[in-house]
Amino acid sequence: MRQLLARQRGKKHNIPIAVLISGTGSNLQALIDAEAVNRLSATIRVVVSSKDTALGVKRAQNAKIKTEIVRPSDYSTREEHDETLAKLLLRSSVEFVCLAGYTCIVGPRVLEAFPNRVLNIHPSLLPAFPGLNAPQQAMQFGVKITGCTVHIVTDVVDGGPIVAQGAVPVLDGDTTEALAARILAEEHRIYPQVVRWFCERRVHVNGRMVTIDRHPLDDEGDG
Amino acid sequence: MRQLLARQRGKKHNIPIAVLISGTGSNLQALIDAEAVNRLSATIRVVVSSKDTALGVKRAQNAKIKTEIVRPSDYSTREEHDETLAKLLLRSSVEFVCLAGYTCIVGPRVLEAFPNRVLNIHPSLLPAFPGLNAPQQAMQFGVKITGCTVHIVTDVVDGGPIVAQGAVPVLDGDTTEALAARILAEEHRIYPQVVRWFCERRVHVNGRMVTIDRHPLDDEGDG
Repeated sequence: MRQLLARQRGKKHNIPIAVLISGTGSNLQALIDAEAVNRLSATIRVVVSSKDTALGVKRAQNAKIKTEIVRPSDYSTREEHDETLAKLLLRSSVEFVCLAGYTCIVGPRVLEAFPNRVLNIHPSLLPAFPGLNAPQQAMQFGVKITGCTVHIVTDVVDGGPIVAQGAVPVLDGDTTEALAARILAEEHRIYPQVVRWFCERRVHVNGRMVTIDRHPLDDEGDG
Repeated sequence: MRQLLARQRGKKHNIPIAVLISGTGSNLQALIDAEAVNRLSATIRVVVSSKDTALGVKRAQNAKIKTEIVRPSDYSTREEHDETLAKLLLRSSVEFVCLAGYTCIVGPRVLEAFPNRVLNIHPSLLPAFPGLNAPQQAMQFGVKITGCTVHIVTDVVDGGPIVAQGAVPVLDGDTTEALAARILAEEHRIYPQVVRWFCERRVHVNGRMVTIDRHPLDDEGDG
């Protein structure tokens, strides 16, 4: 019964989204997998990679998703790159843009074209450890709990409104690699959930405050 | 059997500690309660309050613990206050100094007298939200997970090595008061646990890295 209702909900919302990647695309895979079992309420219409060698491109091709390569180095200015990306995303008629290990800064043209509709997942409990190598930063600081954060992308890098967070313990004797893998597993859990919330119009943003309409039959955990 | 072993362990370690307070002393109460059931491996030898009106003083008196009032305003310099406090703590022959809602900065004389032996609990997942009103800071930032941190006190306020953290969810519709109360409940769980670890010589500090010897029969959770 639960599953039936979830399926029905999934069918009502089949929102086109784009996923932007630069690397292995394991979060892309989590989104592909959630779509496949009708738990994303979205259709990944296009995967845009900043690198043609990204493993994520292969994952998209395997799932028969259209891929586009938009290399920053092919453009003489950031503005030109931003403009090209914005046009591509608008042409694809996607409603949401999900960054998944995308290593370029998203420029103002994309952000203006998709207000409060560009999402990112970051491997720390923001505002702790913004920027690169967050799991390593957490290890070096010696925290005992870290995690991941899904946030709306704004012009402040890793600074936009927070939609969901997942906590992950740091264990005695952890390596950075072991910790990063544990965080990544939590990312794969919460990112599809958040994309689904957005596609089902259940996310309300008021300044920095983000609230979610919870369904009584939610089988997703509380994110 | 478990409890028996815990009791025996408790009996072997009966380390004298001081607790420093400025207010209601609910974390002091958590320590008093843990000592009463032989789960602290410590004896609270003295409670020092920076205010004679603190409710925590009453709690200490109710538990027949010696109290001392050391008001910063009674000293003409910070150094004099620091010196007095250091002498008092040394005279009491305590091994550890536990800050519990203590609102004064601990000076260098106390820190030198108790190297890596002054502990504090802070109501956020440090390094996020150091300083005053941490639950309010967390609410205003819009995080979905916050918590509390037990750390070793150094000359960097809220910046010392982290011993344990507890995560707490921020719920839709939370008030700062509701969130602060939820964090405080977690503080009451982890602070006595950490004091016990220190008193049982199970804490190893290496720079910012703090590790704990875990006992196979630990019944305290993983902090």
